Amino acid sequence: MSAPDWIALDWGTTHLRGWAMRRDGTVIEERGSPRGMGTLAPDGFEPALREMCGDWLDGDPVPIIACGMVGAKQGWVEAAYASVPCPPLSGALTAAPGRLDAWIIPGLSQSGPADVMRGEETQVAGFLALNPGWDGVLCLPGSHSKWAHLSAGEVVSFRSFMTGELYAALSQHSVLRHSVQGEGWDEAAFDDGVAETLSRPERLASALFTIRAADLLEGRDSATARARLSGLLIGAELAAAKPYWLGQQIGVIGAGGLAGLYVRALGAQGAPATQANATAVTLAGLTAAWKQRTQA
Amino acid sequence: MSAPDWIALDWGTTHLRGWAMRRDGTVIEERGSPRGMGTLAPDGFEPALREMCGDWLDGDPVPIIACGMVGAKQGWVEAAYASVPCPPLSGALTAAPGRLDAWIIPGLSQSGPADVMRGEETQVAGFLALNPGWDGVLCLPGSHSKWAHLSAGEVVSFRSFMTGELYAALSQHSVLRHSVQGEGWDEAAFDDGVAETLSRPERLASALFTIRAADLLEGRDSATARARLSGLLIGAELAAAKPYWLGQQIGVIGAGGLAGLYVRALGAQGAPATQANATAVTLAGLTAAWKQRTQA
Repeated sequence: MSAPDWIALDWGTTHLRGWAMRRDGTVIEERGSPRGMGTLAPDGFEPALREMCGDWLDGDPVPIIACGMVGAKQGWVEAAYASVPCPPLSGALTAAPGRLDAWIIPGLSQSGPADVMRGEETQVAGFLALNPGWDGVLCLPGSHSKWAHLSAGEVVSFRSFMTGELYAALSQHSVLRHSVQGEGWDEAAFDDGVAETLSRPERLASALFTIRAADLLEGRDSATARARLSGLLIGAELAAAKPYWLGQQIGVIGAGGLAGLYVRALGAQGAPATQANATAVTLAGLTAAWKQRTQA
Repeated sequence: MSAPDWIALDWGTTHLRGWAMRRDGTVIEERGSPRGMGTLAPDGFEPALREMCGDWLDGDPVPIIACGMVGAKQGWVEAAYASVPCPPLSGALTAAPGRLDAWIIPGLSQSGPADVMRGEETQVAGFLALNPGWDGVLCLPGSHSKWAHLSAGEVVSFRSFMTGELYAALSQHSVLRHSVQGEGWDEAAFDDGVAETLSRPERLASALFTIRAADLLEGRDSATARARLSGLLIGAELAAAKPYWLGQQIGVIGAGGLAGLYVRALGAQGAPATQANATAVTLAGLTAAWKQRTQA
């Protein structure tokens, strides 16, 4: 394999993904590593990268563009946030320490209400690169899902929700763990859960306990319990994010799985959403950052 | 010490407390053990009880009255729920297997919305025994806090909230753990958190993330973060429980600590609440159950 023209990295808390890229945007090869930012001390990033990339780094210094938690305070080097409203890739890239030609994309911050993102700004930029001139609201489901309002190529404002992390903490570390373990999925229970907290969001903490009580009293199966837990949490998020999505053009980053649940829940509210492939938008965003840097 | 006339037990998931009692309601001695229901197989309860009680069990068979998770399906023996509306001690006591004269107080269940309690029914009964004729709403803060509507000596309805368990799960198993560790308490941050979710409960999942974001952007201290987390969760509970407490006489079970936070939050809403000592009401409830059994 000839050396790539540049390397794209999506370096999150738990995982590192890399792509060897041609100048024209073609992917030569993709690799992954479990050495996420959460497992590394500052001096561990360069060795982890060299280990994964190997022969990609032979020859001339290869430009490397990275996004994600690699730029957090506890990461390789802190890439200071750019403050919204601003284009998703408006801050200068931060050079990583060491002997590689590696650059990190800054996250975005918002002062009121206080909020931050790292990695999602690259997905937003990629979505805009693939859909030039798009205005509307992007939903990025995950551990800390984000809703971003886009207008004229800028992120006007955004909001984070701890929905994914609440789901994980409740299903692993609360009394609900007895009720949600197992396989299967009950779509009707998911839909009912969404409808319940979307119309009465204040009932969330009480509705959560009904999952356990219904299991004790009526022996509900785990497919129902798990789908209801997910529905209640996503419904509460949609209720809180309603000022974002109501009457707007909506895009959801992700294909199937969790993103599909958001699209289903929004559809039930008469709010159709477009799904975009997460890897495609990440790669498009990294490519946009590389082009900005090359042209700079 | 002469043998007690009877033994009172509060046997929860993580802890066992016992009191050697005189017929007239006097406490002779109190003992505790870490052998909660969660640590025991069904055949482990009698040995754990003998180990803690020791000399209390010498001589004639001593009647033992127990409340709490000891009567759950995974406990010593299942004590079937009594269904509300009903007096808090309306179900028959369930005899524990083995050679001891031990009896377990049944919990309460509700079919719509599905809900259960075990142990709190005894505190409710004790509160009523200490406050005869009291009508109103009792709040029992905890891992799964309960609100019970009492009228004419009966529990009319009740509602559980996972507030305490959400606090524990979020402060130990989410990204907020980086922000809330430490000592200290910021009362203003607690009050602001309560006010925020009490007026806009749908914002909870988003407001939670602002704790982390404010720490990253402004370096908020852990006393502020922890008090804000507690305030946001209690405010959301009060918003959901508002149909219970609004315009009602309110009692909160517990002295200081968590119960004090509920009283403070309710007071800020112009809803004064009476606090009752948790141990006193538990013991009064166990005594009421023992009297019912003796007189039956």
